[in-house]
Amino acid sequence: MSSRGAGRRAGSPDTRAEILEAARRQFAANGYDRATMRAIAADAGVDPSLIHHYFGTKDRLFATSIDLSGSAGEALDAVLGEGGEDLGRRLAETFFTVWEQEEARTSLLGILRSATGGEDRAVLAFRQFLTSVLLERIAPKIEGESRQLRALLMASHLVGVAMTRYVMRLEPIASVSVAEIIDLVAPRIQSYVEAA
Amino acid sequence: MSSRGAGRRAGSPDTRAEILEAARRQFAANGYDRATMRAIAADAGVDPSLIHHYFGTKDRLFATSIDLSGSAGEALDAVLGEGGEDLGRRLAETFFTVWEQEEARTSLLGILRSATGGEDRAVLAFRQFLTSVLLERIAPKIEGESRQLRALLMASHLVGVAMTRYVMRLEPIASVSVAEIIDLVAPRIQSYVEAA
Repeated sequence: MSSRGAGRRAGSPDTRAEILEAARRQFAANGYDRATMRAIAADAGVDPSLIHHYFGTKDRLFATSIDLSGSAGEALDAVLGEGGEDLGRRLAETFFTVWEQEEARTSLLGILRSATGGEDRAVLAFRQFLTSVLLERIAPKIEGESRQLRALLMASHLVGVAMTRYVMRLEPIASVSVAEIIDLVAPRIQSYVEAA
Repeated sequence: MSSRGAGRRAGSPDTRAEILEAARRQFAANGYDRATMRAIAADAGVDPSLIHHYFGTKDRLFATSIDLSGSAGEALDAVLGEGGEDLGRRLAETFFTVWEQEEARTSLLGILRSATGGEDRAVLAFRQFLTSVLLERIAPKIEGESRQLRALLMASHLVGVAMTRYVMRLEPIASVSVAEIIDLVAPRIQSYVEAA
């Protein structure tokens, strides 16, 4: 996996971050299949071998790029750290705060398109990411039976709103304020937290 | 719009239905942009001019093909005719009954892929269809404020479950029975019917 002449730059956290940013841009703009390692390397201004050094395969680069997409990971940790009460509202707020940021939205739209476009490896990477977040991090925070299924139904609702608001842009959901959507969605998310 | 030599077959409801079936197959298999009028005509065994005679443009053919997709339209009319009580459960049951039919699912997956794939005319046709169903047929059946927005949020939740169960196939939502999903989803859909 290591590459000739990459010893120096391999030590730089900036280079790794730059590759990740370039990967997110390329995956968002072109989808998983058409975003080549060569194009990502060119975008980041590094040799392609350096991507292999840091991330191994394109699958793993993709998985890493979505895992750290925008500030979603850190925001989620903060939300989950506060305990289960009002978790529904905080999850909805976090979800929409990320989606309302233009850069994150571009990246997330690319992921959603890859995931629905039948691009199998992208679906696999996205599935692994979502599964780990939902089953390992969110499900343990909720009570009662079928908690894994309910964690997935919470996510389904949020993803569905992203589909109708940001992808299909159906009215009136596309134009109302995020606050109005959160006020309506949060109690339904919370109901999945609380009861089977 | 009328075509040479099509007078005889133009009178046959079978021909129109055959064109629609072929259109659904081609849109599902290839997406909106790549499904050509010529390929649809060949699939239906008719002259392309006959498609123009019946449906005009490709946009209108697509809109008609999704409006009549499977038995969704008739099922929805039946569900809405029964009044608002327990509407959430009946909508959820109808939605998943259609999705669980293999032929309908193939068609719906094609639509969802087109709608998320940035194929603008497909998104437009799908948006017109969904908007007419949600705002003109479902919203009037629910009570209170923001009924149009709540109708869209109900649809968002159902579409989101279709995404995680049928498109992304996340576990455990992909493998549990439809009955188990309906038992959990229906009360949340019903809560949108009943309260703002």
